[in-house]
Amino acid sequence: MKLSALRRRELSPGTALILYYLTAIALGTVLLALPAASRGAPLSLLDALFTATSAQCVTGLVVVDTGSDLSLFGQLVVLVLIQIGGLGIMTFSVLLFIYLGRRVSMRGRWIIHETLIHTPVASLRDLLGTILIFTLFIELAGTVLLALVFVPEMGWGQGIYHAVFHAVSAFCNAGFALFPDSLESYAAHPLTNLTVMLLITLGGLGFLVVCELFNWVRNRRSRRRLSLHSRLVLWTSAILTLGGALMIFLLESGNSLHGRTALEGLWVAVFQSVTARTAGFNTFDLSLFHPATLMLMLFLMLIGASPGSCGGGLKTTSIAVLFAALLSRLRGSPHTSILHRTIPEEQVTKTLSLVLLALVLLGTSIFFLLAVQMPTQPLIAHEESFLLYVFEAVSAFATVGLSLGATAELGDAGKLIIIVLMFVGRVGLLTVAFAIVRRRRQKPLRYGEENIMIG
Amino acid sequence: MKLSALRRRELSPGTALILYYLTAIALGTVLLALPAASRGAPLSLLDALFTATSAQCVTGLVVVDTGSDLSLFGQLVVLVLIQIGGLGIMTFSVLLFIYLGRRVSMRGRWIIHETLIHTPVASLRDLLGTILIFTLFIELAGTVLLALVFVPEMGWGQGIYHAVFHAVSAFCNAGFALFPDSLESYAAHPLTNLTVMLLITLGGLGFLVVCELFNWVRNRRSRRRLSLHSRLVLWTSAILTLGGALMIFLLESGNSLHGRTALEGLWVAVFQSVTARTAGFNTFDLSLFHPATLMLMLFLMLIGASPGSCGGGLKTTSIAVLFAALLSRLRGSPHTSILHRTIPEEQVTKTLSLVLLALVLLGTSIFFLLAVQMPTQPLIAHEESFLLYVFEAVSAFATVGLSLGATAELGDAGKLIIIVLMFVGRVGLLTVAFAIVRRRRQKPLRYGEENIMIG
Ligand SMILES: [K+]
Ligand SMILES: [K+]
Repeated sequence: MKLSALRRRELSPGTALILYYLTAIALGTVLLALPAASRGAPLSLLDALFTATSAQCVTGLVVVDTGSDLSLFGQLVVLVLIQIGGLGIMTFSVLLFIYLGRRVSMRGRWIIHETLIHTPVASLRDLLGTILIFTLFIELAGTVLLALVFVPEMGWGQGIYHAVFHAVSAFCNAGFALFPDSLESYAAHPLTNLTVMLLITLGGLGFLVVCELFNWVRNRRSRRRLSLHSRLVLWTSAILTLGGALMIFLLESGNSLHGRTALEGLWVAVFQSVTARTAGFNTFDLSLFHPATLMLMLFLMLIGASPGSCGGGLKTTSIAVLFAALLSRLRGSPHTSILHRTIPEEQVTKTLSLVLLALVLLGTSIFFLLAVQMPTQPLIAHEESFLLYVFEAVSAFATVGLSLGATAELGDAGKLIIIVLMFVGRVGLLTVAFAIVRRRRQKPLRYGEENIMIG
Repeated sequence: MKLSALRRRELSPGTALILYYLTAIALGTVLLALPAASRGAPLSLLDALFTATSAQCVTGLVVVDTGSDLSLFGQLVVLVLIQIGGLGIMTFSVLLFIYLGRRVSMRGRWIIHETLIHTPVASLRDLLGTILIFTLFIELAGTVLLALVFVPEMGWGQGIYHAVFHAVSAFCNAGFALFPDSLESYAAHPLTNLTVMLLITLGGLGFLVVCELFNWVRNRRSRRRLSLHSRLVLWTSAILTLGGALMIFLLESGNSLHGRTALEGLWVAVFQSVTARTAGFNTFDLSLFHPATLMLMLFLMLIGASPGSCGGGLKTTSIAVLFAALLSRLRGSPHTSILHRTIPEEQVTKTLSLVLLALVLLGTSIFFLLAVQMPTQPLIAHEESFLLYVFEAVSAFATVGLSLGATAELGDAGKLIIIVLMFVGRVGLLTVAFAIVRRRRQKPLRYGEENIMIG
């Protein structure tokens, strides 16, 4: 299919995105519900749907243990869903940028051309092909590095299999692990830590940024300045990752990290800061963290990764624009400027709307989640459950996959709400982004203007 | 001082607002720290500052029991601070509307003239005078009704005193009570419930709306349609109050209301729905509520009352504009329309910015509050404290005054954070609103535009 066909809306990209995800989830659900997919009794249809959605939306929340409850076949279904889910979201979100770029300025087109190694992107197939090669190359490198850890531990077959599974899961920011305690056994293992964090980061920066960065490093002589988008992504990601790690370390060094060496503590803090930005592995029992630390992780999870990547959340660029916009409003400036460039006002308004829409949806979902889980909570333990479910909902919506243990307590209605949250957080926000970027055909109704009081 | 002087910015209204509140809080702190202000040992300076800020910002959070710890003199200081705090916020927020109205359209001016009983508002003194008469009239009516309850119970002196105190506290949405359990003893007492709810509602709808409504009811023959502002306030308030009450009733009828009659349950549900919208009295022990119900109350508290009133929060109109804006974006319409009128796009952007700024401030404050309270929380009880402190922070920021018990556990740093939150939630947001409404003189710096990816 040609990109131009998409633009002429023979098939709206929003519709294509939803169809792609729904089809994959439906197929995955059927396959995971087969007796062959599990080691013990077959999964209920709801659990199969939950697992398929979690894998396809690269979330990583689990109602069954991937390593011990699923058979090899079941695990492979999960792995394939993760891979096509990750590829899908990358492709569609790069498409969104092309969309934006073509319409609002020439700059977007330039970045696409520049980053796609100077090949003009004529068709969806070309774009998908380039993204595929890029993905497989990084995942292969990750597999080799992880195999150095796993093969000596488990032998060739299991070692390679574990390396592939975790490399794909890490790069796609899916957070599915074959170990029941995620990566907690490797909390202070440098090679595992470094490899997984590198895969998560490359998967979370976004295809265009990594390509642009790669070209920038390669062409040392004829260097152009990086695009605003890439600089914004790199700065925001660096600040969030390092700042988050530092704060986790400071908050927990007298609390849950007490008794560990400073080096071990740093590994734990850096990894948890990286993984909160929608990867969803963990190398530490999060329920030991203080509520202040968990609140910090809620922020990191909500902000999430960068657009055009496998990661979820509100996105680094949205948050950067949000802060720049609020700062400019406070200074009384009508323009939103960041890193010496001005963001088009239309884009600022859209970003603010998207962030607020997400927050409204999330708040409403948390309320309903608490309400449907109400009968399963004894009266005494009420207050404890609030943080658990807020964390669970944010984790699902931002497709992070970290949990304080609420997943195990979900009733049927609770599972359905989390399924919807994972889907909406992954597919819905991007579809809405497509929709609000779309140009309207019909003339909208406009009434007389009238002021009201605010503030 | 003439309004025109304010507009010419001989004194910026934002600066005047801050000075007015800071002066009153400083004076109140000194008076409350005097030995004469308390029955036992004098208040510490921090507790005096906390109490003065809470009273002046009509919040109602208390670190000392107003009825038993403060002397009559101390209680009168609190009462005076509530009254000048409530009058101040009403005056300044009506000024903000005049500001808006004069600049953006003629409609605002029309509403002011219409509502101020056809008297042209020439000076700040006129405006203040009209607001003062309006306030005293309603508070007097409330006092008479409450005296019917309190005088038979406590005799003339105490009865009248309690009636005055609670009428002022209710109309100003302050939530200070002389009973240690707020109004819990009157949970199913019809006259107290009705009077207090009426006072809260009149105080929360806003001066202009009540005036316009009064004129509308009086001039039955020459009726004009109510202004968009008034219709928006009335619709949003009605939906929130009734919807909130219904949901509290449904959620709690099988939980904390179990064992009470349906009528008692309804009184409790309606009162808690009304009071959450920044009044801060309670007729029920909120810690018995389920987290889902408390989440609902968090929303109600955050939304709060209407602009131009004594109430706090994000304001009903902001929320209405927010929802209208999000709906119009989802439908792909560039205009935000509501009740068959279009809101100026500039005002929509400002509203979205104000709401997001408030949420960012609130989120950051909750994090810092949790962090400074960290050492006082034993490791085991960690999770319980999250909801307590989130509730406390929202309550302070939206100047509600409801608490699940965290106020009593605040250390010095925690008290300071709550003091700042009360001040910023009350004075800060309005100042920011003035600032972003203000026209800029100097030409702002504008860089080249460049798109980035969002979503
Ligand atoms: K994930
Ligand atoms: K209050």
